[in-house]
Amino acid sequence: MINNFPLPSWVYDTVIYEIFPDRFFVGKGKTVNEKRDLYEKRNGKIEKWNVVPKRLNNHDHVNVFYGGDLWGIAEKIDYLKNLGINAIYLTPIFLASSNHKYDTIDYFKVDPQFGGLPALKNLIKVVHRNQIKIILDGVFNHVGKDHILFKKALKGDKKYKNMFIFYENYYRGWWGTSSLPELHLEEVKVKEYITSVLRRYLDLGIDGWRLDCGQDLGPEINRFINAKVKEYSTEKYLVSEIWTYPAGWDMVDGIMNYHFRETVIDFLLDKNPNAGYVLQKTYDETSNIFGCWNMLDSHDTKRLANVLNDKFLRKAAILLQFTYPGVPVIYYGTEIGLTGGDDPECRKTMEWDSSKWDTELFNYYKKLIYLRKNEPALRYGSFELLSNDPLIFMRKSPFVLDQIIVYLNKHEETEISVSLPDNRLLNGTSFVDLLSENEFFVMGGTLKLKLPARSFGILKVRKKIVREYDQYKRIS
Amino acid sequence: MINNFPLPSWVYDTVIYEIFPDRFFVGKGKTVNEKRDLYEKRNGKIEKWNVVPKRLNNHDHVNVFYGGDLWGIAEKIDYLKNLGINAIYLTPIFLASSNHKYDTIDYFKVDPQFGGLPALKNLIKVVHRNQIKIILDGVFNHVGKDHILFKKALKGDKKYKNMFIFYENYYRGWWGTSSLPELHLEEVKVKEYITSVLRRYLDLGIDGWRLDCGQDLGPEINRFINAKVKEYSTEKYLVSEIWTYPAGWDMVDGIMNYHFRETVIDFLLDKNPNAGYVLQKTYDETSNIFGCWNMLDSHDTKRLANVLNDKFLRKAAILLQFTYPGVPVIYYGTEIGLTGGDDPECRKTMEWDSSKWDTELFNYYKKLIYLRKNEPALRYGSFELLSNDPLIFMRKSPFVLDQIIVYLNKHEETEISVSLPDNRLLNGTSFVDLLSENEFFVMGGTLKLKLPARSFGILKVRKKIVREYDQYKRIS
Repeated sequence: MINNFPLPSWVYDTVIYEIFPDRFFVGKGKTVNEKRDLYEKRNGKIEKWNVVPKRLNNHDHVNVFYGGDLWGIAEKIDYLKNLGINAIYLTPIFLASSNHKYDTIDYFKVDPQFGGLPALKNLIKVVHRNQIKIILDGVFNHVGKDHILFKKALKGDKKYKNMFIFYENYYRGWWGTSSLPELHLEEVKVKEYITSVLRRYLDLGIDGWRLDCGQDLGPEINRFINAKVKEYSTEKYLVSEIWTYPAGWDMVDGIMNYHFRETVIDFLLDKNPNAGYVLQKTYDETSNIFGCWNMLDSHDTKRLANVLNDKFLRKAAILLQFTYPGVPVIYYGTEIGLTGGDDPECRKTMEWDSSKWDTELFNYYKKLIYLRKNEPALRYGSFELLSNDPLIFMRKSPFVLDQIIVYLNKHEETEISVSLPDNRLLNGTSFVDLLSENEFFVMGGTLKLKLPARSFGILKVRKKIVREYDQYKRIS
Repeated sequence: MINNFPLPSWVYDTVIYEIFPDRFFVGKGKTVNEKRDLYEKRNGKIEKWNVVPKRLNNHDHVNVFYGGDLWGIAEKIDYLKNLGINAIYLTPIFLASSNHKYDTIDYFKVDPQFGGLPALKNLIKVVHRNQIKIILDGVFNHVGKDHILFKKALKGDKKYKNMFIFYENYYRGWWGTSSLPELHLEEVKVKEYITSVLRRYLDLGIDGWRLDCGQDLGPEINRFINAKVKEYSTEKYLVSEIWTYPAGWDMVDGIMNYHFRETVIDFLLDKNPNAGYVLQKTYDETSNIFGCWNMLDSHDTKRLANVLNDKFLRKAAILLQFTYPGVPVIYYGTEIGLTGGDDPECRKTMEWDSSKWDTELFNYYKKLIYLRKNEPALRYGSFELLSNDPLIFMRKSPFVLDQIIVYLNKHEETEISVSLPDNRLLNGTSFVDLLSENEFFVMGGTLKLKLPARSFGILKVRKKIVREYDQYKRIS
């Protein structure tokens, strides 16, 4: 399988911030109380911002709203700019019953609970003015049971019946769930319908789509949607939600790389002794790895702080998220140390009282985002494993003096020599840790490292010129 | 990058002996005292043979001479033949101020301190009569400040000025050193000059050149010099001094593989847990690995005995030097256990009193040279890693009954089963250690090994014929 479309080049330079709109910020100076009608008239309940969401019987927690909306996201643009991210990904925003809105009623309406179309237009304008891209969530495997066309089909309207799959006494739902009828994706009418949705929001100016349930869509529908997105413009980005080994899902620009998350977290918890080899193999085999999302958490997982409570390990995971090929994705609030177990706890509201933030963590994210922006090797470089554990790898750049080496030692202090598989790295060259300023030297194509206990670093070649003599004058 | 020229086939069969001429042997029955004029009239100092060289202020140790010359090397031909080497590499021998002669005054004169042109002609004749090749050191990145053309350029002679690089108040020197002005290698006149030097000594019958400071020369000048050498004859050999990962420097026949040295020594000192993988990767990626020099020490490093004082570890390193693909290079004296720290200590005089030799070590070298000459797999076989640590690898030969397996266990006694990636190695075949006569058996394509504590071996298939029945009669 060959992906015929090149990755939009802006993706290499991108750090994404994922937002669950109901829980980020309430715009226009309002509280959820002032918006209560929007929820209660549709059988929703409202809750105060600081109350932690709890799992309720009959899945009722999906009907609890905190009031966040697209106006609110736009108002927090300075926060996003200060953090340094340059793309946002929003979980679904179209008319739907639940707070998560994965149960679409109408793809052509932005949910009024989120501010409706005016709020979306405003958000697109504000983020673009600030060089931030916006990616929306396309839920095309299924709709909600209140979806306008599904309701017509249920009532027997033959025009829409074949858009779904009806059996004698029931219809096919996602994982058998009757509230989420699956679309009959192979039908021409469904394909045209999805295409029109894709185009509608691309016309409004969004920069890409994330496809929900990409595995359920299957390779051919992913390929079809990608073709439609690229037909619109090769500058538009398409990422699919795929929870498996990423290699081979190359009919899209990338996938949400949860395989990366599992590999990294298991490694840090001493449950995967082969993680380095796995990261190398995955890199080697995944042709679209640079378009994949380096996930550590999301609205579908425990928050990172709950999985890696140990701060060193957590920062180590984040280090890998920013230095492994692919697009780092920060799940809102994880950058300030927000906690939360499985859904719905991982979907709690953003903390805006900065006295409650983990400021050291926040600054660490800023530093990594800054380094990624400034180091071409971290954005474009190939991945070369130098050691499995301590985990050490090179991001190899076309220009030798851009070379980056990342190390992560979760054990005691250790001395280790690694081979540098780059025939341009000359003797006596030094690598300097961009985080600590420690310096290490190259000897015969090997780097001699002394790694403190529980430490990590990002090393870069230091260029040295003596009275116009430059060892690298004929090497680049 | 493709090297268009094949490696001279004699190189596969070669073991090189590196000589620093001032320190090997004084010929014609003389002592340095009888040659003192040659040194003192050029501001050199002489020293007695058994006095260890010491680092002096102002780098003055480069002006201390012990009297060794090319006559002396020729007179020691029986020693070299007894050891078993079949090529010598001499550090520079052209007119220059220092004892190391990397500061050339005139490439067209063999230094009278080394016996001048007659001594070189004699040496070439003597070594060739004994089937020993001779490789000279070409120092073309820079000259000495007293170089005849540089002096003219300094005086303002415009004819030679562009052969160097002058700034307002100084000129470019190697690493900023004013005593070593760099040649402007991209200039036509410099290229012609170097070409004429190469040809001059090829005409005299030398078999190859070693290029000093190959990294500084850069890929294009290496390529240019290689073209000139091969234009002369494809039987001539060109090796470049490159202290980095060897893969990609394939515009020459080979490089001095110091990366091999670092990898092996760090492995033996428990500082590189990935050495086996590195040796495999380097082999896989380096198209000219068979032309590279397997270095363990040289005039530019501490002697092997100073790095690996432990005799088992030292012999293990030497084992790898003779069994890894590439050309083993013995630095004069290391074969009898000579010690010495960094330059100038590693350049002390050869010990000719055999009662002071490590005879067991000397015989070990002889044994390895003998095995390498007799086992085609050690000369031509591919490299297949079977185990990282204990380090076990196969040298895979086109003819199955030539197969060699090398093992090195630096730990306690251990039992290990390794897969043999060779579909011709039949069940029940035995491998016999050529060093110890221990025997091991193949079972279903795996070899079951019991390795004593701190041990190594070179295993070879034992051919077994029972009453005219040969399991391998249809397999080779």
